[in-house]
Order: sequence, then C-alpha cells, then structure tokens
Amino acid sequence: MVTGRNENLSGRIRLGMVGGGNDAFIGGVHRIAARLDDKFELVAGALSSTPEKAQASGEALGLARIYDDFKQMAIREARLKSGIEAVSIVTPNHVHYAAAREFLKRGIHVICDKPLTSTLSDAKKLVKAAESSDALFILTHNYTGYPMVRQAQEMVANGDIGTIRVLQVEYPQDWLTEQQDFKQAEWRTDPERSGAGGSTGDIGTHAYNLACFVTGLEAESLAADLQAFVPGRPVDDNAHVMLRFKGGARGMLWCSQVAPGNENALRLRVYGDKGGLEWAQEDPNYLWFTPYGEPKRLITRNGAGAGDAANRISRVPPGHPEGYLEGFANIYSEAAEAIQAHRNGKTPDASVVYPTIQDGLSGVKFVGACVQSAARNSAWVKLD
Amino acid sequence: MVTGRNENLSGRIRLGMVGGGNDAFIGGVHRIAARLDDKFELVAGALSSTPEKAQASGEALGLARIYDDFKQMAIREARLKSGIEAVSIVTPNHVHYAAAREFLKRGIHVICDKPLTSTLSDAKKLVKAAESSDALFILTHNYTGYPMVRQAQEMVANGDIGTIRVLQVEYPQDWLTEQQDFKQAEWRTDPERSGAGGSTGDIGTHAYNLACFVTGLEAESLAADLQAFVPGRPVDDNAHVMLRFKGGARGMLWCSQVAPGNENALRLRVYGDKGGLEWAQEDPNYLWFTPYGEPKRLITRNGAGAGDAANRISRVPPGHPEGYLEGFANIYSEAAEAIQAHRNGKTPDASVVYPTIQDGLSGVKFVGACVQSAARNSAWVKLD
Amino acid sequence: MVTGRNENLSGRIRLGMVGGGNDAFIGGVHRIAARLDDKFELVAGALSSTPEKAQASGEALGLARIYDDFKQMAIREARLKSGIEAVSIVTPNHVHYAAAREFLKRGIHVICDKPLTSTLSDAKKLVKAAESSDALFILTHNYTGYPMVRQAQEMVANGDIGTIRVLQVEYPQDWLTEQQDFKQAEWRTDPERSGAGGSTGDIGTHAYNLACFVTGLEAESLAADLQAFVPGRPVDDNAHVMLRFKGGARGMLWCSQVAPGNENALRLRVYGDKGGLEWAQEDPNYLWFTPYGEPKRLITRNGAGAGDAANRISRVPPGHPEGYLEGFANIYSEAAEAIQAHRNGKTPDASVVYPTIQDGLSGVKFVGACVQSAARNSAWVKLD
Amino acid sequence: MVTGRNENLSGRIRLGMVGGGNDAFIGGVHRIAARLDDKFELVAGALSSTPEKAQASGEALGLARIYDDFKQMAIREARLKSGIEAVSIVTPNHVHYAAAREFLKRGIHVICDKPLTSTLSDAKKLVKAAESSDALFILTHNYTGYPMVRQAQEMVANGDIGTIRVLQVEYPQDWLTEQQDFKQAEWRTDPERSGAGGSTGDIGTHAYNLACFVTGLEAESLAADLQAFVPGRPVDDNAHVMLRFKGGARGMLWCSQVAPGNENALRLRVYGDKGGLEWAQEDPNYLWFTPYGEPKRLITRNGAGAGDAANRISRVPPGHPEGYLEGFANIYSEAAEAIQAHRNGKTPDASVVYPTIQDGLSGVKFVGACVQSAARNSAWVKLD
Repeated sequence: MVTGRNENLSGRIRLGMVGGGNDAFIGGVHRIAARLDDKFELVAGALSSTPEKAQASGEALGLARIYDDFKQMAIREARLKSGIEAVSIVTPNHVHYAAAREFLKRGIHVICDKPLTSTLSDAKKLVKAAESSDALFILTHNYTGYPMVRQAQEMVANGDIGTIRVLQVEYPQDWLTEQQDFKQAEWRTDPERSGAGGSTGDIGTHAYNLACFVTGLEAESLAADLQAFVPGRPVDDNAHVMLRFKGGARGMLWCSQVAPGNENALRLRVYGDKGGLEWAQEDPNYLWFTPYGEPKRLITRNGAGAGDAANRISRVPPGHPEGYLEGFANIYSEAAEAIQAHRNGKTPDASVVYPTIQDGLSGVKFVGACVQSAARNSAWVKLD
Repeated sequence: MVTGRNENLSGRIRLGMVGGGNDAFIGGVHRIAARLDDKFELVAGALSSTPEKAQASGEALGLARIYDDFKQMAIREARLKSGIEAVSIVTPNHVHYAAAREFLKRGIHVICDKPLTSTLSDAKKLVKAAESSDALFILTHNYTGYPMVRQAQEMVANGDIGTIRVLQVEYPQDWLTEQQDFKQAEWRTDPERSGAGGSTGDIGTHAYNLACFVTGLEAESLAADLQAFVPGRPVDDNAHVMLRFKGGARGMLWCSQVAPGNENALRLRVYGDKGGLEWAQEDPNYLWFTPYGEPKRLITRNGAGAGDAANRISRVPPGHPEGYLEGFANIYSEAAEAIQAHRNGKTPDASVVYPTIQDGLSGVKFVGACVQSAARNSAWVKLD
Repeated sequence: MVTGRNENLSGRIRLGMVGGGNDAFIGGVHRIAARLDDKFELVAGALSSTPEKAQASGEALGLARIYDDFKQMAIREARLKSGIEAVSIVTPNHVHYAAAREFLKRGIHVICDKPLTSTLSDAKKLVKAAESSDALFILTHNYTGYPMVRQAQEMVANGDIGTIRVLQVEYPQDWLTEQQDFKQAEWRTDPERSGAGGSTGDIGTHAYNLACFVTGLEAESLAADLQAFVPGRPVDDNAHVMLRFKGGARGMLWCSQVAPGNENALRLRVYGDKGGLEWAQEDPNYLWFTPYGEPKRLITRNGAGAGDAANRISRVPPGHPEGYLEGFANIYSEAAEAIQAHRNGKTPDASVVYPTIQDGLSGVKFVGACVQSAARNSAWVKLD
Repeated sequence: MVTGRNENLSGRIRLGMVGGGNDAFIGGVHRIAARLDDKFELVAGALSSTPEKAQASGEALGLARIYDDFKQMAIREARLKSGIEAVSIVTPNHVHYAAAREFLKRGIHVICDKPLTSTLSDAKKLVKAAESSDALFILTHNYTGYPMVRQAQEMVANGDIGTIRVLQVEYPQDWLTEQQDFKQAEWRTDPERSGAGGSTGDIGTHAYNLACFVTGLEAESLAADLQAFVPGRPVDDNAHVMLRFKGGARGMLWCSQVAPGNENALRLRVYGDKGGLEWAQEDPNYLWFTPYGEPKRLITRNGAGAGDAANRISRVPPGHPEGYLEGFANIYSEAAEAIQAHRNGKTPDASVVYPTIQDGLSGVKFVGACVQSAARNSAWVKLD
C-alpha cells in the first residue's frame, strides 16, 4: 500500500551542523528533517557564533563533538576517520558562503539553507567552490520536497496541461505587519545579514524557485515594484513582480510579509493551453488539476491520480496528511540517496531530485534583479 | 428577521431595452435583474440591430411596443404620455455611446452595461451628454451589487483594516482558452466592437472597478504586460498589471480568459496595517476578515457580523445563498430608488449606491492605460 | 451558451396567494420565485388571517383583488372569467389543508409550502382532495429545484455511483439555539400550528425529501432520538434518525436548530458501490463526484460535466452563482410548464419535475414516525 | 516564536518493538513517531511472528537485538542492564493482550496500538495486568495528539461553547469498497484477529475516543445499526450509531469503509449552548469555532487564538502544516515525558496527556455494545 519513502536500510550518514543553536527556528527544522527517515546521524556541531552558546546548544542536543566555530569544525572533522560526511548550514544568509567554502574544500557535502548567499558576488564564488569540489551541494528549497509539487512537475513534464502560458505564484505572510524585535525578524530585515532583498530574499526566492521547478521554465526578465511599508524598515516587505519566461510564458509573483490573514500562504497556479494546475502550501496534500473542458479534479497525495514521482516520496496512506516537516525531510532523504550513491562512486537514480547550487545562484540573481528593477522604476531587467 | 430589499411598494418604473435580443446572454440577465424586486416593468424595446430580429425578440417577450432601432424608440417614447422612464442598454460596447446619447438628451434615465464605451473619445462625449442631461446614468458594474462587497466597503471605510497597503485583485476565466466562434466570444474579441482591450475591457474593468469601489482608493498609475495567447486573436486575452494608488498603496491586477479551471473567478484581497479582507465572486456570500493578530473570521451575508450596508440589500436569511442575479438586481433596485427619488424631485437616501458614468470613464481610461503601457514595454502610465 | 431556463414565451399564469403578509418571510420568497422567470402574474391575495392586515399587505403589493380570507377568494376567483389559475399557499402549516381544499375543489392549481399539513389525518384528506380534483398540486420542497441536485439525481439514475449503500443527510441550523420570540420562531415551535414535529417538520422533511429525491430510494423504517434542548420548548429542536431503505441501503439523518455555526447547512452524501456524490446547500453550484478509484471531481452548474437535467434549469454561465431564490424559482417554473401543458390538455414534458402531494404525504409520515419512534425509545417504526 | 515540542534534552529512552515487520504499515508509523522528537532509540525487536521474517526485518532496520518472539524478548531484555525501557506493540489486535502482559509483568512500559484487544475478556485481563504493574501503559489513539484536538479539548473545558448538547462524529473511508486481498485489509476483516467489530473496531474506536477526549463526556448508551455491504465480509464495514451521554448530550457516530471519495475523513463537530467547534483530520491544522451569535473563527495551529495546550505540542510556526506523523509523534513524546518522570520517581506535569488503558477498555466496550445493539435490532445498550 505504501510504496514511498523507506527508512534507512544501510548505514546512516554522519552529519554536522553550523548554526541552529537554542533559539533558532530553522535549525530545529533541519534536525527533524534529517532524522525523520533515519538516514542521518547528527554527531557534530558549531551551533552558534558565540562559543558559550555553541557549547551549551551542543550539549543540550547531546552532540558527540562540539566546536566553537565552523572553520575549526571543518578542519578537525576532515581529519577524523569517522568525521562528518555532510554538514547542514543554517546560519543567517551572510555566513553561508564562508562556511560552505570550508567544508566543500575538504570534500564534505553541504546541505545549505536558502537563499544561497546574501550577495551575488558571494554566490558566484560559492558556485566556483562547489564546482571545484567533489562534494555535493544541496540547497534546502524545501517546498520542492512536497509530494504534490513533484506531482505537478511530473504532470507538466508529461504535457498534461500543454504549453504553459500563464504562471501565478504568490507567497504572502503577515508576521512583519508591525515592527518586530525578536531574533527571527531581526536578521531577516537587516540587509547586512540577509542581503539587499527583504521579502524577496526570504520568501520570494522560494516562490521563484517553486515556479521554475514545477514548470521547467527559465525566466528571461522581470519588472518589479518593491515596498517597505513598515516605517524604518531598510528592506522590502512587499514585492510585486511581473515575469517573462523564455518561450513566451508570462507570470506574476507576489510576496509580502505585511498581508494580515496570511500565515505562510505560498501558492502556485500554472495554466497551459490544455489545462491548469493549482497548489497551495498550507494544504499541501491536494493538487487541483483541470483538463480544459472537463471538471476540476482533486489529486491527493498517495491517492487516486497520484503518480510515481509523488508516491516515491510519500510515507503514509492518502487522507493521513503529511506536512512541512515531511516535505523538508524529503530534501534530506534525496540528499541521503545522492550521498550514499557518492559513497559508492555511483550516480544516484534519476528519480532523486534536489535543489542545487545553480538554483541558489538563480535565486540570488532573482533578488538582485528585483532590487535593480525597482530602482529603475520597474524597468524590465534580464535574468542571467 | 429579513430587513433588506423590499418588493415594490409604489408604482413600477416603465423600462425600455436596447439590445438583448434572442441569443444575447446579458440582455436576459438585465431583464431578470429588473424584475427580481418588482420595481420595473419592461414595456418597450429595440432588441436587435436587424429589424426582423428586433420584432421577433420583442414579440417573444410580449413587449407592448417594439422598435426597429434605438433612435426611433427614444424619439417616440419621449413623446408618449406613459413612455419609458428608463432604458437599459445592453448592446456590444461600440454602440453604447450613440444609444445612450439619444435617451439622455430626452431625459430618459440610462442603465448601461459596461464598459462604458469602446473608445476614450466616446466616453468623454458620453460624460458630457450625461452632465448636460437631467436624467440619471447608471453603469452595471454589477459586482458592486453583492452584499458582501458592500460589507467590505463599509469595513474599509470604518477603518477595520487600517490604512490600506496592498491590494490584489484578479479575474481569471477560461472560456477563450481556445478559438471560439459563437457570438458572445466573437464581438468581445473584435477591437472594432469591444474596444482596444480584450480581457482588460471585458473583465479587467470589472476587477479594477471592484478594487476601487471597496477601497475608496484612486489609482495613480499602472504598468501592464498584455498578451494574446491564442494565435490570431487581435486583442489581449491575458493581462498582468501593477498598480500604484494615491497615498502609497500598491496593487496587482490579473485578468485572463485563458486560465483553465477558472470559470468566473473574480477575487479581491485587501490588506491594511490593521487587518485584511478577502472576497471571491464564486462564493459571494462569504467575506473573510482578519483583524491583525486575531483568528480569521467568516462574515456571512445577513449573518452575524454583517452590517447595515450589506443587510440593506439582502433578501433571504443567512445560509440561503444569494447569487449573481441577486447582485445584479441590487444595481437595478438602487437605480429604482434613485429614479423614484428623481420622480419626486428628491435626492435618494445616502445609502443608495450605484456605479456612475465617472466609474465608466475610469474604466475606459484603465483599458487605455493598459494598452499604452504594454505598447511602451510596461512603462508606468498615469491614470486620469 | 446558456441553454437553460427561458423567460416566458406565452401568456403568464394568473396567480393568487394565501398567507404571505407583510412580516412573513416565506411569502416574499414565493413571490420572487414566481416572478423570476416571468411565468406568473400575482393578481389576487388573502395575505393574512386578519382582514385589516390582509388589506394593507395586498395594497402594498399592488394586488388587483384583495380578499379577507381564502374561502372567499376561492369562491370569487373561481367565478371570474380571468380569475386566478393557481394559488400559492404560504400560511403556517395547520392552515394548509383547509386552504388547499377550497382551491382544489374549484379546479385551481395549488402551489403549497411544506410540510404538507400539520397532522397525518389532514394530509390523507388532502391527498383525497387532490385526487378528486383536476387541478395540479405542487409542493415547494424547493431544494429539489437546485440544478446540482438534479445533476445528482440524474447521475444516480444513470448508475454513475452504482448500487447505493449508504446515505448521509443532515440539516443543521442554529437560529433556535436560544429561546426566540419573533414570529418566524413562534409558530414553528407551536405544535398546534406546526405539527408534532419541530425541527423534524420544519427542516427534517426537507432533508428526507432531498435524500429520497436524489436517490430514488424509498425508506422502509426509521429509528429516531428526538430532543428539545431549549427548556420549555414543546417540540424537538434536534433529531437523530437512522434509516433503512427498501433494497438494503442504510442512512442517517440529522436535523438540528441548536447547532451554533450552522446557518442553513443542508447537506447530502450518497455512496454506492461504484462511487460517491456530495452536495451542500450553502454552496449549491458545486457537486462533488468520486468514481471509486479515481480522483474526486468538482462538477459545476452549467460547467463541464453538468448534464441535461441540470443545464435545463440553469440561467447563467458557470462561475456566476445561482442561489436559493433561483432554486425556488425552478419549482415555480416547473409548475408553470405543467400548468401551461394542462391549459392545453397535454402532459408536460418528462423533464418537468416537481414535488407532489405524495412527497408531502411522505414527509408528514416521516415526522409521525420520528415522533412515534422517539416515544418508543427509538424503536424501528415502519414508514407507510 | 516556536514554544512547543522540544527535541530530546536528556537521555533517550531505549525502545523495543513487537510486530511492525517489513510489510506492515503501522509499524513504520510508530518508528517515525518515536524518532521525530528524538526521545527514543529503537534497539530491539520481535518484528514478525515468523522467525525468518523477524530476523530479516530487524536487520533491515539495523536493530541491535533481534528476537524470534515477544516472550523471549521480554524475558531477555528485562535481564539486561541496558535493556529496553519501553516496548511498542504493533501486531494485529488479537496479539495485543498476550504481548503486553509479558512486558507489563516485567516492568517494561507498553505503548500499544489500538484497539486495546480483540475481545472484552482480554481487555479486562489486560487492565488488571496493567494495574498490578508499575509500568506505564500508553494506547496510541493518535488522533488525540493533534494540536487542534487539544485546542478543542481546552476550549470545551474552558466553557467556550457552554454546556454540550449535540456531538456529531464520523470516520468514513473508502478503501474496503471492494473486496481486498492485501495484508492490511485481510486481518482487519477477520474477526479472529481484529475482533467482532470491523469498521467499528478499526476506526469507530478512534472516532469514539476522539469524541470523548475532546468533550470530556461519558457515553451512557448507544443504539447501532451495522452492515457488511461487501458480500462475504464477516464483519461490519459500515456503522450508524446513536449515542446518549451522561448529563443529557446526544450524538451520532458514523464510520464506514465503503464510502467512495473518503480517504481518512475523521471529523468531529460539537455544539453547546454557547457555541460550536468543528475539526477535520484531513485538514488538521484548522479548528473552526463559532461563539453563538458571532462570526465563525478559524483558529490555526500555533496561530492567533491557539492556546497553551495546542502550542505546547506544536513544532513549527503557523502556516507550516503539521500532519499525521507529527500528531502520532505527540503521543510518543507525551509517553516519553511520562517515562522520564517515572525514571525519576516523579509524576509528569499535568499538561502531559495520553490515551490510557481505560480509554482502551472503553473502546472495546464500545465495539461490544455496537455488535450487541445491532444483534438486538438497534436496541439501546448501556456502556460500562
């Protein structure tokens, strides 16, 4: 009945973590994601930029090896016989490049949170670092780990909606409607640490990545209107973006952190000349499919109508909802399959899919283009 | 319990109709709308541009007086002691100006379908004609007749969502996904008869009007990207529009006739610094309201939370859905109240609200600005 | 495009009304329903049991002939050359029998609100009166007038869900959660006027009728548990009923007037060995259909997947919602078609469908069986 | 921001498993649930009733100690210095009693799948075994682990909906619509292994437990109508049950495995004299709350309106959906907190809540009462 994700059947991958100390939200998410399918074992960490906190956080998690900083960790783990094989980087954006570089150059696989980096310059350097390393680089654009997102991708690829004409993607939230002081909000609205984009970097990149992932389209150019509605906020908290894709499709992207009533409302709609697809992250087990001229159909995770790409990464039967953590875990489990193949000098199966450093570079370019277009009164700006 | 729309309590208004012959969809809608609250009596018509069809259609409806053309009708009805007091104009767009002028100049009230005209030049002339007439001019932007749209307007005006920052309005359909031959599609995709805008004129104007109506905002400028996806189609069938409003709010408008799975999916979302509102035409008895920091609330027509503006134009208790025809009838019944007040030389009650010729002019300007912006590679174009 | 309900193409039917004075909700609904498709003209009325109110209400509506009581009206109208051809009876339940009898015996067609009568004895006498009359009898179980209910009926009849096994029907409301004083509530909770059933008679009969209408099943027996939760209420305000149908299907019916959050939440679900159907009155333009083993499909009024039975009684395109009044009007328009056929000595087309006096008798029996079963500690009680 | 479930901060609990070999669905679910919050470590197992399969399954999972049968495992683990502290029992129902007894009598905590046992006799013996053991007994009625179920329970306890009057609970599925051969279906429809109830035991017990858990009500008696619609099926696949609760509330329970279009549609609605609550398992992050006379409110997991009981067991921010596995993990993490307190000779915090053996006994009585009532033509049967 359930033919999808399996638990670990061979040795677990030894994992380290950079960032993700006590009060960091996303670190905990990465740890659960790594643990869910039992394919990783977290053994080492440099969990904070302050040594005391790094120590305390590492102890609280019962880590075998605790480090003061990521460089020290990279150096020492690389020397150990049973040192970490992979590292999760979950720091604020501006640290991604420096941290990732240290591990890549020592052949340790990197699983990095998005956006790739806070500047385009860092992103390009990181791409080079990855290219000259034998290690794998996985970017956690986690929303591509939802089974019904894979289902949508598969259906587009199969031609089920024909040639794509229109793409609407949006990612509204409301948590920054007012000025916030707590840590999650603070670094995300500081251009030094998060990059020039605010909502564009934090969530716009997810929306952009999702749209490209599902459709297989490449954006050609964009025209953006960015705002910072909350007084004193140095980065955008709302962005309206028009998109032109290679081949002629057109789209719109809206991301906002000031839209009351929206918690995490990432939503994608794609329309072709033969049909349409609609998916919403907050109700992720459903995919709406309308073959043009026929009634709308509700495809459910692991249910009737779901295909191989989605079923492969499902765990429980239809009607038993999987959520955000399961989707995130799918990125980790894809990474695990790729790393296990790498251990054996093999290429992973073609069904193994995860966001790459190129996706990360695209995201950073997207943010840059948004900022540039906005500065030029929404002129069209080329991507790439 | 039900305190809203009443049936006619004084004499019905004598109504004529121009256009709306046998095979016209919107004519039948106007007739039901006029009849629903029993405030009008349809007595005369010039229902088609071909005399035979005009005669046959008039007979089928049992009209008392049937005319070959609207000018003849305007002249003769104006001379009759019990001639029509008002006329509904439901022809293709390019005829609106010429027809409306004939009735306005004879003091016959005009209820005109949208968009106001097919050209800006006609629109301006029609505004003058209306200004120099004692007769009323009502434009059937019918979606403003939905009770929950009035509710939204009232809540915005009451400050329930604070200062508006972001507005998302969309109006996707799918009926023109492929080339169509039937009459409804034909004139709507002919620029000579419908105007330079395709989807922008036919449905974009509704979306634009709805957004302005609910928020009370005035658009300052727009940047548009228009497409005609179906080969050979001379007007746009998809439009992406970014909007800037006076006072700083920003918005997006998307209209499409090539989005499979969307029947008539007009939807408005408005976000202020204190809350958000969401409404969808296909489920019109619901209004979602989120006061920032509190749970989302579902306000229902005539239900708990609905206020005077909505209840005044409701007919049946909550849970007994009202629909498109009831909303359309509300425009007619507002017109009736205004005409009845006019009969008595009075101003209608302040609660009587209907779209005016100025709304019509704004709509024509909107279409023109979209076309102009698209021609200038989506440059921002001022409105007004 | 719109191939459904047409406006009147021949002479309107002259209609009278009994009950439905100023402050009665359902009278106004019947009048709108009669007017919507322009097939009736309301010309006479005995709108209240008190002559002054009857006079005032009739004047307010501009009726041509106003009567003090229904008997006087029946006698005089029957003698007029252009007297009423049909009468709508919209009084409290206990008056239905006496009023209907007067018109039936004079050959005037009766359109009667539900439930048929307040007692089984009256119901049986009324059936006899109808059988010995040439006049038609139409019961306004209006929910059978919704296009998607007809769609469901057609699909069941076509075998789309196979042999029916399970039927779940419910009709919760909340308006009697607390003691109410206003008129609508008052007579509905008085057994002298509404009958022995409270919620069972007022809304349970609708649910029961809907279930039988859609499925074509006949109930064999029921077991009921009735409650009056509001202290001092002499009739049930909540009913749980188990149903056994001829042929082996089983079902449940729940009706309640004390379920906060439910406005008028009539809902039907039917499951066969090949598929399932789900419909909800508050969102009436949708019908959910699941062929077993395939994705759920959303069939929409006048949209893809809708068949002849539904399209025939639709007025506007898909995505333009029709509601309660349109559904109610469909009963009136079916009645009109039957009456027009009767005028010409013909049988109406087989597609003309309306609830009959037998449906009314079944409803009264249903209420009686509920009350009897409850009195016998939920023992199974035969129906018929 | 996220104040809920924490990862393990002290030593993990050593866990064993009985049942849950390669092809068993529920075993994998228990393992993920145990792992998600990092509070358990699976070290031993007797995963199958056939030694070869037990061995192979244990190896595949990399278990430290693999046993041929549960008795052997109980005996040996009890003797080890670092033997298992707790065991998960995930066999078919008829094995629960014998297996649980072996561990309870050796002081090993038991986490047991539901229903408790396949017979009432076994259930009573198991209650005694648990009472005479120092070990804890946790029953995985996992649906009580959903945060919004806890929210509902807290709101009922706070009096937010007043005195409960009506309770509607349903659990329809469709996977047994046709005869099935695969293992999951097979033992669940064999009375020797699953007990006398089919759908009543497999899913009805969940629905019954959920209803009692949220409301705090105790059922007094029930009247049931059971069917086996699929020819040759020896146990019920559909059940209609009327419920009477101590204190006067009334309810209905429907469970079905033959309702096409329902995947796992457990749903609870509770109505009091001050408000109503509605929750659906397939969309578990939402709780609908209507204070009587006010608009319906949508309370979301970890969002505005959610209280301590729900937030305590949430992991990720609002809008990041948690699902079935997270809810299941909450039962395991509650168990872990209780076991950790037990290690230290303490009572766990009052906020720690999990289903107990008494809930299990109630479930078995519920099944027995359903079967008995059905055999007596739906007569009311007392519970307890």
